[in-house]
Amino acid sequence: MVGGGRDAFIGAVHRIAARIDDQYELVAGAFSADPEKALASAADLGVARAYTSFADMAAREARRKDGIDAVAIVTPNHMHAPVAMQFLRRGIHVICDKPLTATLPEAKRLAKAAEASGVVFALTHNYTGYPMVRQAKAMVAAGELGEIRVVHVEYLQDWLTEAVTNKQAEWRTDPARSGVGGSTGDIGTHAFNLANFVTGLSLEALAADLSAFVPGRRVDDNGHVLMRFRGGAKGTLMCSQVAPGNENGLRLRVYGSKGGLEWAQEDPNYLWFTPFGQPKRLITRGGAGSGPEAGRVSRVPPGHPEGYLEGFATIYTEAARAIRAAKSGTPLPEGTTFPGLREGLEGVAFVDACARSSARNGAWVGLNL
Amino acid sequence: MVGGGRDAFIGAVHRIAARIDDQYELVAGAFSADPEKALASAADLGVARAYTSFADMAAREARRKDGIDAVAIVTPNHMHAPVAMQFLRRGIHVICDKPLTATLPEAKRLAKAAEASGVVFALTHNYTGYPMVRQAKAMVAAGELGEIRVVHVEYLQDWLTEAVTNKQAEWRTDPARSGVGGSTGDIGTHAFNLANFVTGLSLEALAADLSAFVPGRRVDDNGHVLMRFRGGAKGTLMCSQVAPGNENGLRLRVYGSKGGLEWAQEDPNYLWFTPFGQPKRLITRGGAGSGPEAGRVSRVPPGHPEGYLEGFATIYTEAARAIRAAKSGTPLPEGTTFPGLREGLEGVAFVDACARSSARNGAWVGLNL
Amino acid sequence: MVGGGRDAFIGAVHRIAARIDDQYELVAGAFSADPEKALASAADLGVARAYTSFADMAAREARRKDGIDAVAIVTPNHMHAPVAMQFLRRGIHVICDKPLTATLPEAKRLAKAAEASGVVFALTHNYTGYPMVRQAKAMVAAGELGEIRVVHVEYLQDWLTEAVTNKQAEWRTDPARSGVGGSTGDIGTHAFNLANFVTGLSLEALAADLSAFVPGRRVDDNGHVLMRFRGGAKGTLMCSQVAPGNENGLRLRVYGSKGGLEWAQEDPNYLWFTPFGQPKRLITRGGAGSGPEAGRVSRVPPGHPEGYLEGFATIYTEAARAIRAAKSGTPLPEGTTFPGLREGLEGVAFVDACARSSARNGAWVGLNL
Amino acid sequence: MVGGGRDAFIGAVHRIAARIDDQYELVAGAFSADPEKALASAADLGVARAYTSFADMAAREARRKDGIDAVAIVTPNHMHAPVAMQFLRRGIHVICDKPLTATLPEAKRLAKAAEASGVVFALTHNYTGYPMVRQAKAMVAAGELGEIRVVHVEYLQDWLTEAVTNKQAEWRTDPARSGVGGSTGDIGTHAFNLANFVTGLSLEALAADLSAFVPGRRVDDNGHVLMRFRGGAKGTLMCSQVAPGNENGLRLRVYGSKGGLEWAQEDPNYLWFTPFGQPKRLITRGGAGSGPEAGRVSRVPPGHPEGYLEGFATIYTEAARAIRAAKSGTPLPEGTTFPGLREGLEGVAFVDACARSSARNGAWVGLNL
Repeated sequence: MVGGGRDAFIGAVHRIAARIDDQYELVAGAFSADPEKALASAADLGVARAYTSFADMAAREARRKDGIDAVAIVTPNHMHAPVAMQFLRRGIHVICDKPLTATLPEAKRLAKAAEASGVVFALTHNYTGYPMVRQAKAMVAAGELGEIRVVHVEYLQDWLTEAVTNKQAEWRTDPARSGVGGSTGDIGTHAFNLANFVTGLSLEALAADLSAFVPGRRVDDNGHVLMRFRGGAKGTLMCSQVAPGNENGLRLRVYGSKGGLEWAQEDPNYLWFTPFGQPKRLITRGGAGSGPEAGRVSRVPPGHPEGYLEGFATIYTEAARAIRAAKSGTPLPEGTTFPGLREGLEGVAFVDACARSSARNGAWVGLNL
Repeated sequence: MVGGGRDAFIGAVHRIAARIDDQYELVAGAFSADPEKALASAADLGVARAYTSFADMAAREARRKDGIDAVAIVTPNHMHAPVAMQFLRRGIHVICDKPLTATLPEAKRLAKAAEASGVVFALTHNYTGYPMVRQAKAMVAAGELGEIRVVHVEYLQDWLTEAVTNKQAEWRTDPARSGVGGSTGDIGTHAFNLANFVTGLSLEALAADLSAFVPGRRVDDNGHVLMRFRGGAKGTLMCSQVAPGNENGLRLRVYGSKGGLEWAQEDPNYLWFTPFGQPKRLITRGGAGSGPEAGRVSRVPPGHPEGYLEGFATIYTEAARAIRAAKSGTPLPEGTTFPGLREGLEGVAFVDACARSSARNGAWVGLNL
Repeated sequence: MVGGGRDAFIGAVHRIAARIDDQYELVAGAFSADPEKALASAADLGVARAYTSFADMAAREARRKDGIDAVAIVTPNHMHAPVAMQFLRRGIHVICDKPLTATLPEAKRLAKAAEASGVVFALTHNYTGYPMVRQAKAMVAAGELGEIRVVHVEYLQDWLTEAVTNKQAEWRTDPARSGVGGSTGDIGTHAFNLANFVTGLSLEALAADLSAFVPGRRVDDNGHVLMRFRGGAKGTLMCSQVAPGNENGLRLRVYGSKGGLEWAQEDPNYLWFTPFGQPKRLITRGGAGSGPEAGRVSRVPPGHPEGYLEGFATIYTEAARAIRAAKSGTPLPEGTTFPGLREGLEGVAFVDACARSSARNGAWVGLNL
Repeated sequence: MVGGGRDAFIGAVHRIAARIDDQYELVAGAFSADPEKALASAADLGVARAYTSFADMAAREARRKDGIDAVAIVTPNHMHAPVAMQFLRRGIHVICDKPLTATLPEAKRLAKAAEASGVVFALTHNYTGYPMVRQAKAMVAAGELGEIRVVHVEYLQDWLTEAVTNKQAEWRTDPARSGVGGSTGDIGTHAFNLANFVTGLSLEALAADLSAFVPGRRVDDNGHVLMRFRGGAKGTLMCSQVAPGNENGLRLRVYGSKGGLEWAQEDPNYLWFTPFGQPKRLITRGGAGSGPEAGRVSRVPPGHPEGYLEGFATIYTEAARAIRAAKSGTPLPEGTTFPGLREGLEGVAFVDACARSSARNGAWVGLNL
């Protein structure tokens, strides 16, 4: 693991996620750019192979016989690319937090290099690990909604309603570390990825109106985006970090010519499905109407809620399947699905497009892929 | 009453709404453009003064000593103006279904004439009659949300998901009768009015992307609108008649620097309020936290739900207060609030602006008032 | 109307309910036992035939050619019987608030007299007027739940959590006026009636544990009841006026060998139905899956909520159908359904049985009918 | 681990729960009474020290220098006691699935032996590991509800609505293996434990009406229980395995003189709190109003749902704290809370009391402790 030392948030999440299905063991880490903190964090975690530099870690792990198979990158966004490059060029598989990078050119370079290297590259758009998100994707793919016409996705939070100065807020509102997008980069990318994942649609153009409501904020903290997809579907995307009463309000609604779906991250075990002209149905994870795509990423029976960590764990476990296949030269097990470079590129391109459109007063722009 | 004969939907709603608080008696009507149906409808309703022409009705009622005080206009949209003109120029007060008219020039002419006439003119944007909508407005006005930053309003239905040919669908999807807007005119105007009513904000510009998803449909059945308000707030408005699983999904969310509010028409007795940094609170109609603005338009204790008809009745009763004040030359009772010409003009201008923006590929346009 | 003067609660509800479907006109009243208040209330309401004594009213109305067809009795419980007797023995139809009487012997006498008189006698167990309650009853009757096994019904409020002294609380906690039951009589009877109405089951025995939690309270404010029905079904009934966070939490759940139903009074337009082995379905009033029994007592389209007053109005309108049939000697229109003497007797017998069982430490007792 | 081999449900849950907080390593197991299955299961799990007999495992692990610190017992109920005895008399700590044993005498013997041994004994009443359950307990203890008056707890499922014959259903409906209680033992004990945990109340007496609705079923599949607590509070407990539409509907409601709380297992991150006379508040895990007792057992920020496995993990982690303290002779870290022998005894006594009361037609009986 690179990053994720004391005071970090997402590193601990990755560690639990990696443990849940017993597919990973944490054996080495460069947990902080601050050497003292790096070593202290390793001691906290009982990790013997503690490094103070990620480059050093990559080099030395690559040389060990029992060196790591994969690295988890959980640094601020601007460090994703430099760190990943060190590992992938040595053939070490990469599991990287989102967004892929802080800038689009960087994302393109990284994607190119990663593809050339042949390593498995998983990007933790973790919401695609929720069983009912898999279920939704399967239902759309099976045509149960007919032709998709309208997609509404939103991710609303309130933690940046006022100016704050904790570690999380600090780097996430600093364009040098987070990239050009504030709310668009931090959560808008998740929303965009979720909509793409479930619908399978491809964006044609978007028109964005971004705002920084809190005085002094240097990145957007609220975004409203109109979307047009190839084939004629339309959509909206809203992201906000200044919407009081919302914690992690990621919500997706998809409407087609034959039915509609609704899903909300905060109540992830429920999927609402309305075949047009019939009563709304509540499909629960593992319950009646929940199919094999949800089942293969579930751990407990219906009515026993699985949560955020389990969905996150699924991304890790899917990646483990790919890594194992890569190591053994066997084909990827059927159904294995996890976000990677393409989703990463699209996410950074989405942030870039939002910024370009907003700068041009909401003009329609395409993804610069 | 003009319109509202056999097979009509909204006429019956108006009649019940008028009765609930015992402020009106239905004594005359031109219930249909079809003379036979007009008379049969009057007989059904036990209304003695049955007319086969609204012009005739206006003329003759104006001459009677016991002539009507007010007329309810519940015809298709394109007839609102011609009918209203007949009555208001004779000093008969008008309660008119929304939107005000089918076209903007017509709306302007009607508004001018109505103002000149001095009659009371109530437009049944009935959702503003819900007690918790009044409560929300009061809380925004009292500063409980701080400065408003973001407004999300939506009105989603599914009844036009497929091509349909009943009477309701027929005229509502015929531009000659409904006006240029389909979903924007029929329900978008309600959403727009609700957002304005609660926030007190004034629209600066909008950018719209309208669609007609169902083959052969001549008016929009889905609309996505970005909004900018004077003073810096931003918003989105979504309206759809092709969103399976939605019956009358009118939902408002308002976020400010100090708190957030959420309300949904289908569960109208609940208002969700989150003062930033405190737990979300469920304010129920008449319950703790529900103030006098909601109380003065409530009829039953908390926990006994009031619904659509009661909210509609409130518009009628507020209008009755105004009519009584007008007749007696006394001041309007404090707190009396109902939508009228201004709201009507804004609604038609909203539809017009959506159409203009959408025709120009989502360019920002203002209301042409 | 007898009772329902200034300060009363339920009288105003009855008046609105009677107006909604335009089946009644309020022309006479003895609105209070206090003559001054009786007259003042009549003046408030614009009712010309104002009486200061209900006996006088009954006598004089019976003699008028244009005398009232029916009387609404909205007094405290102990007055229901004496008032009703005056009217029904003169052939005036009766619409009476629940419970039927304050004591069981009184209820039996009244029932006998009413039956002998041949008048229509409607008891306003208004919750049976909700369309989705009708829908639930129809589904049970049609066998969609299979054989009923378990019934859970509850009615929880919190308004008597502390000792209170307003007019409503005063008579409702005075055994001389409300009868032996506090919460059991005031709301437990509603819950019991609702369970019977929907399931069609007949109680065999109950075991009750009643409490008066608030110091000084002379009637129960909380009751827990086990129920056994003829045919083997079991159930529970909970009623409380001391459950903070509950306004009018009347909730019914019915489970059978083939499916389950859930309904809650505070969200009355929704009925949850789970056919065993299939996803839970949300049946909305008038929406898909909602049948003719709900439709015939609905006024507005799905998604436009109907509430408490509309359900109450349905009882009035059903009674009007019966009164009209009685007057004209025609048969009752098909489907007409409203609670009457039998339901009234069962309700008072339920309160009596609860009190007897609780006094005997929760022994099983039957209804003393 | 003893039990939990192929086809078992709860063993896998225990294994994930043990891993989540990285406090345990699975190194040995007797995973089945069937030797072949025991070894195959060990191979599946990559566990080297595979035993075919739990007695053998206890003996040999106790002799190893690197022998296990603790054993997880996840067998059918009737085997809990014999297995636990083998380990605890050798000083190996025990984490045991609930209920403690299949019979009350057995429970008493086991409790006595375990206490004498001095080992840590944790019983996985996992629902007490949910953060918002901890929050509820803390609020009751802090007096935020005032004096507790009424407790409603229920655990409704539907999986045994029809006769089924899978492995889970088989032993859970066989009195020889599950004990005298069917639904009472399997889920009623959870409900009873939850009520006790949150309220801190002590049962004085209960009256139960148990049923076996499905023909041929040898244990109860539905139970209705009235409860009286020491100090005057009253309660109800409902458990059912034949309530269609319920998956794991464990729900607790507590009402006191100053406020009320509601919590549901299927939406575990929400706690509803109503201080009497104020609006209902939604307290979310980690959000505003959520205190340190919830915080110390939380892993991710508010709005990112934690679920069943995390709550289960908390029991494991709390037990780890106790085991570590026991091994090191240090005091138990402050706040450490997990169910053990007392809760186990009470649970088995609860099932026993329900059976005795029901056999005596619902007579009031105490716990035979």
